[in-house]
Amino acid sequence: MAVGAGITDSLLPISGVSIGVACAGIKKKDHRDLVIFQLAPGSTIGAVFTQNAFCAAPVQVAKKHLASGQETRFLVVNTGNANAGTGQQGIEDAQETCSRLAGKRSVNPEQVLPFSTGVIGEYLPMASLIAGIPDALATLNSDNWTEASTGILTTDTREKGASRQFEFEDETITVTGIAKGSGMIKPNMATMLSFVATDAPISQPLLQKITAIASEQSFNRITVDSDTSTNDASVCVATGQVPVSPVESEDNPLYKYLLKTVSEVMLSLAQQIIRDGEGAHKFISVQVNSSDTPDNALKVAYAVAESPLFKTAMSASDANWGRILMAVGKSGIEGLDVDAIDVFLGDVQIVSQGQRCPEYTETAGAAAVAPDEITVRIELNRGHETETVWTTDLSYDYIKINAEYRS
Amino acid sequence: MAVGAGITDSLLPISGVSIGVACAGIKKKDHRDLVIFQLAPGSTIGAVFTQNAFCAAPVQVAKKHLASGQETRFLVVNTGNANAGTGQQGIEDAQETCSRLAGKRSVNPEQVLPFSTGVIGEYLPMASLIAGIPDALATLNSDNWTEASTGILTTDTREKGASRQFEFEDETITVTGIAKGSGMIKPNMATMLSFVATDAPISQPLLQKITAIASEQSFNRITVDSDTSTNDASVCVATGQVPVSPVESEDNPLYKYLLKTVSEVMLSLAQQIIRDGEGAHKFISVQVNSSDTPDNALKVAYAVAESPLFKTAMSASDANWGRILMAVGKSGIEGLDVDAIDVFLGDVQIVSQGQRCPEYTETAGAAAVAPDEITVRIELNRGHETETVWTTDLSYDYIKINAEYRS
Repeated sequence: MAVGAGITDSLLPISGVSIGVACAGIKKKDHRDLVIFQLAPGSTIGAVFTQNAFCAAPVQVAKKHLASGQETRFLVVNTGNANAGTGQQGIEDAQETCSRLAGKRSVNPEQVLPFSTGVIGEYLPMASLIAGIPDALATLNSDNWTEASTGILTTDTREKGASRQFEFEDETITVTGIAKGSGMIKPNMATMLSFVATDAPISQPLLQKITAIASEQSFNRITVDSDTSTNDASVCVATGQVPVSPVESEDNPLYKYLLKTVSEVMLSLAQQIIRDGEGAHKFISVQVNSSDTPDNALKVAYAVAESPLFKTAMSASDANWGRILMAVGKSGIEGLDVDAIDVFLGDVQIVSQGQRCPEYTETAGAAAVAPDEITVRIELNRGHETETVWTTDLSYDYIKINAEYRS
Repeated sequence: MAVGAGITDSLLPISGVSIGVACAGIKKKDHRDLVIFQLAPGSTIGAVFTQNAFCAAPVQVAKKHLASGQETRFLVVNTGNANAGTGQQGIEDAQETCSRLAGKRSVNPEQVLPFSTGVIGEYLPMASLIAGIPDALATLNSDNWTEASTGILTTDTREKGASRQFEFEDETITVTGIAKGSGMIKPNMATMLSFVATDAPISQPLLQKITAIASEQSFNRITVDSDTSTNDASVCVATGQVPVSPVESEDNPLYKYLLKTVSEVMLSLAQQIIRDGEGAHKFISVQVNSSDTPDNALKVAYAVAESPLFKTAMSASDANWGRILMAVGKSGIEGLDVDAIDVFLGDVQIVSQGQRCPEYTETAGAAAVAPDEITVRIELNRGHETETVWTTDLSYDYIKINAEYRS
């Protein structure tokens, strides 16, 4: 039920990042569900987290550990249980996870960041999780990115990952990332879980800036179902193992290269999440052009991308453009001139100046929505700003997956 | 696929309102699709319309005719075609509909208000519609409320109607209403189409006030799919045929009785729309209590009522309370204290202070979500305001209906 190809890149190792993976039996037996990232001393880290007020215990603990100012040396990720809606017990469980791992590697608990994904509202099975930590540590290896990409999945049908390389001062710099996410996807400042690493050297404030900008333009532009997860986290690590001068200023040309490359990796991961969205049969780009402000472009794009009626029509490959106009109309942007709007499905113009384009035919519309990948382009004709949001159709399979999720 | 009983009231005639119904063949043959209301001279009218920026041609024309200040004498309603997204041609078609009817009854076109519902983006089949007008006029009768309730339906599986009576100054006052709507239901200032009439005498400004208040507390508290129609209209007519003193001031006790009774009729109609929501197997009340402001209560209620994950869980009778917390958390209200929140499914407390209630069992939760009618009660514990929103589950049938709507 996923759209298009899965991972197309080889996931290249990042010097300074070792990854261990284990089957801890958190929800299912013999299923990779525990991943540990070990980061070389001197690594910097950027992270953005969910804005859902019910943020999960691991998110709260990770934020606290980052705020301690201590150098992050480990990330520990479990799937099968979100440790959300678990109150004080959940906080203690997340802290104990960090302490147990820290104890095995002689670091402080604050140097470990915890991440969880899975069912909400159940306590972590601590005995299984703790027993899995040595197993995961025993497999630490820089070549484990693909194994890690499978070890963080929940309802995902396939793993997500991307790698890019570029040359800088005669050195090769690599950026590799993995992500998970399939439903409860409307990230707000971050996605479900994404881990990106580079071997470039960069200061923490600038890496945080890159993480925020790249997340905003990738994970914060996708929606499967408009539901914002309690556990979203987008993390970017820089190990600094490549011997070039560290990025301490935005004027360093490496800053721009890194921003561009991290953004590309995150965008690839975000689009892979949409291609594997729950019940997805279509990969839909909703592009809103000629807006007066980016915010208004986004409002219109999300109104369309989240409209159940639009998404259901796409599921049926029905070029029901009335539902696109309806969704644009309910977006609530001020002073919308409906008579100025043009809408295109792929290359086919369906709406001209707010009504059916005279040349439009249902045959042309049907051909335009038949492919797996569809672009809806909306011209507001009131400015020069543009935004794109990526989404899926709403299908029987989405209902099936989510009706049966806990059974 | 509708939940609970349909119309339970006999639809009582309103002195001063005659109704004609015809099969004009607008979309299907031999299918009631044209309804004309004739109002006695001296009737007053209140109306609220969709806030969707793409408001349909008949909405624009009806607003203009109301603004002319001329006494409304006819409402003409077609189903099968929304006359929306039809540009200048759509406006002319709506105006011609009024002119043709006006010509047959020697009134001005401005004394006729047009209403349309159905497919968006196609021109009205004017020849069929005009030919149907004399047929509908030929059947004008005060006992035709039930026929009219079937003549305005689209994807609805059954008609919606309600009647109430009360005694005032030894006279009996009656309020009767009908409505349609099943999908594209998140009214914004009004619902799909609702027509309510009373034989009480009341000034236009006060009737408008009652219409607005009663619509806000009924049609503006329901959502099937968060999609706001282009054609919403809620109309209330007062014929003044009952010989009591006209309501000219809110101090007149009849004002309060009318407000209460019109509100009851509209709430019944709104809830009937939800019970017949597209693909509905559940009638769900989302009640948010102890809020600091009504607006925050509404935001939380809508975040839950519109969450695809919550609605899909309800479709499967799965007491997946983690999705309720998730939706509360994404509602975006300021300063939300998640540790203060309690959640009940029916009488069963599932969440206490932001986490699973110690006494909660999955068995109790399963029993609470098994019935067709479910109340989710959320206590924010930050004030004394309360709001309720009514919604449906999200089922395979919703997808089926909307994927196949145009085929």
